[in-house]
Amino acid sequence: MDKNFLQTLLIDVAEGRLTPEEASDKLKTLPYEDMDFAKIDTHRALRTGRGEVIFGIGKTPGQVAAIMKRMSSDTSPVIATKVGPEYYEAAKAEIPEGLEYHEQAKLLVYKTEPSPLSCTPAAGVAVVCAGTADIPIAEEAAVTAELYGTSVTRYYDVGVAGIHRLMDKIEDIRNADAIVVVAGMEGALSSVVGGLVDAPVIAVPTSIGYGASMGGLAALLAMLNSCSLGVSVVNIDNGFGAGYLASLIVKGKE
Amino acid sequence: MDKNFLQTLLIDVAEGRLTPEEASDKLKTLPYEDMDFAKIDTHRALRTGRGEVIFGIGKTPGQVAAIMKRMSSDTSPVIATKVGPEYYEAAKAEIPEGLEYHEQAKLLVYKTEPSPLSCTPAAGVAVVCAGTADIPIAEEAAVTAELYGTSVTRYYDVGVAGIHRLMDKIEDIRNADAIVVVAGMEGALSSVVGGLVDAPVIAVPTSIGYGASMGGLAALLAMLNSCSLGVSVVNIDNGFGAGYLASLIVKGKE
Amino acid sequence: MDKNFLQTLLIDVAEGRLTPEEASDKLKTLPYEDMDFAKIDTHRALRTGRGEVIFGIGKTPGQVAAIMKRMSSDTSPVIATKVGPEYYEAAKAEIPEGLEYHEQAKLLVYKTEPSPLSCTPAAGVAVVCAGTADIPIAEEAAVTAELYGTSVTRYYDVGVAGIHRLMDKIEDIRNADAIVVVAGMEGALSSVVGGLVDAPVIAVPTSIGYGASMGGLAALLAMLNSCSLGVSVVNIDNGFGAGYLASLIVKGKE
Amino acid sequence: MDKNFLQTLLIDVAEGRLTPEEASDKLKTLPYEDMDFAKIDTHRALRTGRGEVIFGIGKTPGQVAAIMKRMSSDTSPVIATKVGPEYYEAAKAEIPEGLEYHEQAKLLVYKTEPSPLSCTPAAGVAVVCAGTADIPIAEEAAVTAELYGTSVTRYYDVGVAGIHRLMDKIEDIRNADAIVVVAGMEGALSSVVGGLVDAPVIAVPTSIGYGASMGGLAALLAMLNSCSLGVSVVNIDNGFGAGYLASLIVKGKE
Amino acid sequence: MDKNFLQTLLIDVAEGRLTPEEASDKLKTLPYEDMDFAKIDTHRALRTGRGEVIFGIGKTPGQVAAIMKRMSSDTSPVIATKVGPEYYEAAKAEIPEGLEYHEQAKLLVYKTEPSPLSCTPAAGVAVVCAGTADIPIAEEAAVTAELYGTSVTRYYDVGVAGIHRLMDKIEDIRNADAIVVVAGMEGALSSVVGGLVDAPVIAVPTSIGYGASMGGLAALLAMLNSCSLGVSVVNIDNGFGAGYLASLIVKGKE
Amino acid sequence: MDKNFLQTLLIDVAEGRLTPEEASDKLKTLPYEDMDFAKIDTHRALRTGRGEVIFGIGKTPGQVAAIMKRMSSDTSPVIATKVGPEYYEAAKAEIPEGLEYHEQAKLLVYKTEPSPLSCTPAAGVAVVCAGTADIPIAEEAAVTAELYGTSVTRYYDVGVAGIHRLMDKIEDIRNADAIVVVAGMEGALSSVVGGLVDAPVIAVPTSIGYGASMGGLAALLAMLNSCSLGVSVVNIDNGFGAGYLASLIVKGKE
Amino acid sequence: MDKNFLQTLLIDVAEGRLTPEEASDKLKTLPYEDMDFAKIDTHRALRTGRGEVIFGIGKTPGQVAAIMKRMSSDTSPVIATKVGPEYYEAAKAEIPEGLEYHEQAKLLVYKTEPSPLSCTPAAGVAVVCAGTADIPIAEEAAVTAELYGTSVTRYYDVGVAGIHRLMDKIEDIRNADAIVVVAGMEGALSSVVGGLVDAPVIAVPTSIGYGASMGGLAALLAMLNSCSLGVSVVNIDNGFGAGYLASLIVKGKE
Amino acid sequence: MDKNFLQTLLIDVAEGRLTPEEASDKLKTLPYEDMDFAKIDTHRALRTGRGEVIFGIGKTPGQVAAIMKRMSSDTSPVIATKVGPEYYEAAKAEIPEGLEYHEQAKLLVYKTEPSPLSCTPAAGVAVVCAGTADIPIAEEAAVTAELYGTSVTRYYDVGVAGIHRLMDKIEDIRNADAIVVVAGMEGALSSVVGGLVDAPVIAVPTSIGYGASMGGLAALLAMLNSCSLGVSVVNIDNGFGAGYLASLIVKGKE
Repeated sequence: MDKNFLQTLLIDVAEGRLTPEEASDKLKTLPYEDMDFAKIDTHRALRTGRGEVIFGIGKTPGQVAAIMKRMSSDTSPVIATKVGPEYYEAAKAEIPEGLEYHEQAKLLVYKTEPSPLSCTPAAGVAVVCAGTADIPIAEEAAVTAELYGTSVTRYYDVGVAGIHRLMDKIEDIRNADAIVVVAGMEGALSSVVGGLVDAPVIAVPTSIGYGASMGGLAALLAMLNSCSLGVSVVNIDNGFGAGYLASLIVKGKE
Repeated sequence: MDKNFLQTLLIDVAEGRLTPEEASDKLKTLPYEDMDFAKIDTHRALRTGRGEVIFGIGKTPGQVAAIMKRMSSDTSPVIATKVGPEYYEAAKAEIPEGLEYHEQAKLLVYKTEPSPLSCTPAAGVAVVCAGTADIPIAEEAAVTAELYGTSVTRYYDVGVAGIHRLMDKIEDIRNADAIVVVAGMEGALSSVVGGLVDAPVIAVPTSIGYGASMGGLAALLAMLNSCSLGVSVVNIDNGFGAGYLASLIVKGKE
Repeated sequence: MDKNFLQTLLIDVAEGRLTPEEASDKLKTLPYEDMDFAKIDTHRALRTGRGEVIFGIGKTPGQVAAIMKRMSSDTSPVIATKVGPEYYEAAKAEIPEGLEYHEQAKLLVYKTEPSPLSCTPAAGVAVVCAGTADIPIAEEAAVTAELYGTSVTRYYDVGVAGIHRLMDKIEDIRNADAIVVVAGMEGALSSVVGGLVDAPVIAVPTSIGYGASMGGLAALLAMLNSCSLGVSVVNIDNGFGAGYLASLIVKGKE
Repeated sequence: MDKNFLQTLLIDVAEGRLTPEEASDKLKTLPYEDMDFAKIDTHRALRTGRGEVIFGIGKTPGQVAAIMKRMSSDTSPVIATKVGPEYYEAAKAEIPEGLEYHEQAKLLVYKTEPSPLSCTPAAGVAVVCAGTADIPIAEEAAVTAELYGTSVTRYYDVGVAGIHRLMDKIEDIRNADAIVVVAGMEGALSSVVGGLVDAPVIAVPTSIGYGASMGGLAALLAMLNSCSLGVSVVNIDNGFGAGYLASLIVKGKE
Repeated sequence: MDKNFLQTLLIDVAEGRLTPEEASDKLKTLPYEDMDFAKIDTHRALRTGRGEVIFGIGKTPGQVAAIMKRMSSDTSPVIATKVGPEYYEAAKAEIPEGLEYHEQAKLLVYKTEPSPLSCTPAAGVAVVCAGTADIPIAEEAAVTAELYGTSVTRYYDVGVAGIHRLMDKIEDIRNADAIVVVAGMEGALSSVVGGLVDAPVIAVPTSIGYGASMGGLAALLAMLNSCSLGVSVVNIDNGFGAGYLASLIVKGKE
Repeated sequence: MDKNFLQTLLIDVAEGRLTPEEASDKLKTLPYEDMDFAKIDTHRALRTGRGEVIFGIGKTPGQVAAIMKRMSSDTSPVIATKVGPEYYEAAKAEIPEGLEYHEQAKLLVYKTEPSPLSCTPAAGVAVVCAGTADIPIAEEAAVTAELYGTSVTRYYDVGVAGIHRLMDKIEDIRNADAIVVVAGMEGALSSVVGGLVDAPVIAVPTSIGYGASMGGLAALLAMLNSCSLGVSVVNIDNGFGAGYLASLIVKGKE
Repeated sequence: MDKNFLQTLLIDVAEGRLTPEEASDKLKTLPYEDMDFAKIDTHRALRTGRGEVIFGIGKTPGQVAAIMKRMSSDTSPVIATKVGPEYYEAAKAEIPEGLEYHEQAKLLVYKTEPSPLSCTPAAGVAVVCAGTADIPIAEEAAVTAELYGTSVTRYYDVGVAGIHRLMDKIEDIRNADAIVVVAGMEGALSSVVGGLVDAPVIAVPTSIGYGASMGGLAALLAMLNSCSLGVSVVNIDNGFGAGYLASLIVKGKE
Repeated sequence: MDKNFLQTLLIDVAEGRLTPEEASDKLKTLPYEDMDFAKIDTHRALRTGRGEVIFGIGKTPGQVAAIMKRMSSDTSPVIATKVGPEYYEAAKAEIPEGLEYHEQAKLLVYKTEPSPLSCTPAAGVAVVCAGTADIPIAEEAAVTAELYGTSVTRYYDVGVAGIHRLMDKIEDIRNADAIVVVAGMEGALSSVVGGLVDAPVIAVPTSIGYGASMGGLAALLAMLNSCSLGVSVVNIDNGFGAGYLASLIVKGKE
């Protein structure tokens, strides 16, 4: 709970601007907003510094639009993940301004300008992906990190089958404060990058592949067993989670 | 959060008995120390009659003995699960009286007499198992339910390969208020019993079997897919969990 | 087999009211009704106190409608699970009155008024779900429990990512005699709720998620391994089973 | 290789009716017919007593029709499995007479009358299935056994959730020389039947179910772990294989 | 339930030889013998023609010896499966005569002479195994079939890596009325044999192998997917089950 | 890195033909071409003797067409795998000449004539497949090997269910320098072929089958556990990989 | 490759201080030390800022001791993971000073004083674990982070079954710059912590549990599917990896 | 079957040197030697150019020694795989000369001098392994290839975590005609090597690792999904198979 909020409220009571009953009601409920089908965690921005994110899978376009509209009144940015263009259409009908849709990344965003998130221009995230087919997930990570005020550099299609493409870029990649590595199939790229850099590596297995790739499970297992140090893993195709985490890691780095 | 507590505190502020700063400090730790859920937990054993249970796997005999000794000063019964006889030896060195060890069930218990748990003699639990090899897990369930003051009847070795053995007992089993069904291999017994009774059935898959039984996974999956109504499932070999849940279900049944 | 029924029948034979042949026929056949593609278990209501339920998956709308029509003559409620609106249409053509269709829950119900099931207004079931996307399965559980005469309170979108939403409601949830917890993804909600309440918790994993959620398997495994006591699990997305079991548990509680 | 055939051929060589070269060619090639995309095993009927069967999955309607036409000139019955009605349409264009299509069983058959397969009217196969949704696979088994000249009795919707339906029929089922048990979900029916009969039981797991049924894997594992004797298992949804095997088993029984 | 038994009993009631109460008791209880830790299905021999079999895994030597002793008074043969030599020692202390222990097959048998099981000398079972390491499971099958009065021929170490070893024996194998095929690793032998014979093939996957054999799962899956007709499968390493089933199949074949 | 290249470059520096800065830039960058969404490994043909291959899954028709066009200026053949006819249409709009599309094999190829790849007419690859449904993957392998200048002979529909079809061809198959075996279901063919030949066998499991075939996993595991020597395995349905590898193996064989 | 290094070297060539051959040799070989059974990556400290770590599993005590001795001449700390006390004994025989062995954490360390790693006293890592049995893995993480100069605070046995224990500490935990969460069984703790903090959470599943925990797989899957933001995962029981990554993340935070 | 053999035999019959009966017997039986528990494929050396290999798992030391003795009379080398030193002891008692035991590789070999296998000194195999713990499997591959007359170069401990160790050796590795890559954990090495070379790569996953390595499954899946061309895979820990295959591939390369 935000101490400033608490003290303001208690001073209001002490100075008679609020009755104890009114304050009690305010205090008893940590702020969230109860919609018919969702409880919006409006307190989250205070608690963790960032607003809640709308996970799109299993929600209708109408539900996402309604939640986004309600949140847009006091949060920026508001992000919905894993949503198709029909969600953008539904949201536009509700929120006339400030929306943007990232098609490859499948991210729907409401944003006021200027962004309230503090930028850290000196620090940055490298997003590295193995193949062209992994780009949508890489973009999900890159756009997310940018939305949280992080500077991002992209290194795409540098998989280990032609490792000189990676080697050519490795000096630049080493400058990043956090590195997101996106790869499907055998997921070897995170181990190779992890052995060459000193920054934390967030590995994102993708579902790209067929047969024994088992929907990304092969890449996931490989990344979890990385022999390189400093590598951790998020869920298959979870570009958003990787971008979010990367922006957390670089926050406060000089 | 308890509204009365809040109002009292706020009135203290309003009436000057507390400065806003003091109240702020008290309020800030409230959600963790003074909220209902934290208090309830410290009074949990008194209110619900049940203390914390010590899960033995991964703990040393010395650790279990020490935890048990500390708890024995204000809780009864104290139960440690999945422990071998060496745990009993270690505990005896710490706690001279009130210990009992159930060898088949691998339960170590500290208990004062008379048991503080209210008995419900009119209600009861039936523990049914498929084969002789399932008896240790069945005993774990039965002894647990008894420790929580429940009357238990055992029906062992009544698996579906000779279904008349079950049919002969089914009238008695129907009298129970909750039924624990313990079976390995194909786990069919819970579906058959579930189709014949009206009480809740708690299915316990066991790791008895070989080959495609895969350590109890075959029985677990079968029980989860039961076509009979009123069947739920606990972890493989989790006799304790089933006995505990059974005693919860029958509590308060007339 | 009911001993009273047996003795009555045998006395009838002993006293000449039945020939041995007639008695033999009676003994061999418990009542069920044989349709072309289904054998309706009309004896079930007598045997277990509740009529058979129609599992919709793999049956055509016409088959469900026909079974429902036949059962509606002597059972109430008649429930078909996991059926889309086309089943409602097919049933309406057969059964002009008493049908209701729960769209989110995908339950089709025939019901006479007043409901023959005894109400237990003092006892009740809490249905708790983690996210908006889990609501259809939560509704399947809630509507089912209501159909069996149980009072239900819903607590939706209170997942562990913003645990204060759950904490705000936990006092109310504690009043329930049985709690259904519905969650996908990592399924952590059942462990958190299980640690805060004293009533039996029925955990329902859902297939909500992607990648390593593996169609709900991740949530299922998590719930089976719950470190909290009093938690059992039903099949992935089996809201009906959870609601049914919850109504069984609360039956007879004061 | 048939020794009589060998000796006849060698005697022909010894007595000059065949040159060594001719005999060598004959010996090297057992009869089959080479189509563009298939090699029809015309020798199979001689070798095993029954003609080759066309497995429909992965073949186009045109391919199945062409293979069937070619085989129909010297084999009866010719059976194609797991084919939809469009295969029937394609075959009708090629083979004007003798075709029949079993819609539920998804079997396409070419048959001359009278059937060349020897009937065994005194012996018979019982096909037992658990639920209405399992009927298509049960029909695949039943029709197949009939095509191979076996007498079949069907016992459908007698799953273990209402076991008296099975008990009512068990005396009849015991008369069969081989029993096919078809069940999805938890697959318990094969164990229950297996414990009550003396004939071989062929268990067919079906993909009916959802969630932890994992496409029939739960039923498959349960059936493989059956605690009853005399039970063997075929692939998930392999009604054809069960019916075929059943007809083999009863062949030659009095 | 046997109708003759029922009618006899009811006539006894009608004619006053039994009171209704006596008949009721008789009707409710089919015969089995209740030991402390086991319920022996003494009715099984009557019901299915063969006595119960003792599954050794999870039972102590003392338990197996006690069950065997009790059964030996009215059954022959009595068979315990998957038991080591220590079980033989324990049984010898209880049963002085008629015991035999098959070390490779891990079968412990009590048998009176002459065997009460009807022999079928004209019919026979072929037990075929792929490698030397599969012999213990093959012996389990072969000895079992012999114990049930079947004539058995063994064909060991004829795996597909040197397929001419199989081809050399295939004419003999074709004479069998049922064929048990035992193979680990890739389990291909059952498909090859199945394509060459006309009799039912019972495939037994073994746990022989390493790495991706996954304890026999690779062989199990291969055998379930056999492209040959007439093949069914039992559990990994279940030689007993295969031998038992084979003896059932050949029973009554001329 | 090529030492000759390095020494030449360093001599150029030593002798003043290159400044250290120029050399440094040359050393840091091996050649590849950076497109917007792909980095073409133009160095690959130099490095490994063969150009990069375009893996079609997850790329749009437009992306494949653009990459292919760029590569076609200095590489032949250019191959895209696992692409449908819409990719052919897209490529034709970009590349007017030299394209060919292999429909069954789903391979799109750009090729100048005469092929720059050295032919090895004396050596050859046998592509063997089990069933008609496996032909598309077999064709993917066969066409690929041909594109790399290898002579290929096809042996289709020779699965183990009618093993004489294979035996009839085995002498011819033995003449090959490398053998690709394509099979779904139980994948036994690679073991049988492997036991009869002396050349390396590349096994390709296919996803043909249903139920316990689990999308080709059963065949994959069987092939990995082959008891025959000289067998290695590629991914499920990876005909391209097998054909490519086969052409590598035969290269340089006399 | 470091461009400065390259340019210096090339300038040396241009200015005649190195012959092209000498430069070529230098360029081709980055430094590592070739032992009989290991190649020590002595360049790693330069490349990534930290020396190589010895993964103990599969190496003999003698091998670990020899590698450690060789590395100890120019690196500090040298760390071997997952090693028992016998490795400590073997190392002591080789390295008389500077060794320490962490028994619970199973870490063997060689360290000169003062540690060469820069401390960041203002920043810190919280290591949180669910149960007593998870402490060894938590210690592995905590000791590792300390070895890399990070300040660590431990919060042990605060699992979700008694969530007030966690809530009581949460304000302190929020002060950490990175949080390691160690939990077995259902792994719910990482989601709960992740929802309450703003720092990156590194989740470590442990193999603590039984039955459906499947050696830690249940916890792993749950953590990968966390609904909380900012959570990434390392391998089961990989405390070292988590501690290492945590120390990387906090490096450079003010 | 060899046509020359057939024709010779048939000519013998035609010209009266063989009776038809004698020829029939000869035709039916290809040579193998029938021991009590094994059928030695003595024909294999003729058929495939190399003698049978004894797979040690599941065989007793006595069985291996006896088979080896029998084979040693006409084959060299005779190889037994996956055997411990006790097998060596048993064999020494039977075969006084010509035995050698490779302890790390767990290979027991009988060999006459000079080796009858043709050497190909100009061609060679590179055996590359990722870590020290993978060396035993690498040695199994290397020794095997040497036994079949191939020249082998070893590159050990060059895993991707310090990729410059591999890069330093890559020029040498490129000279090999076939490359065996042995790696556990994430198995990335085969993809990296595969992208840098032009020769066939045989990938051997090892069981080195813990947790999500699942006994080598993670490495196996990664290798099967390799994005590099020319890579095929053998079973987990199957060093023998890889060495054998490598020697086949290089045979006949100039």
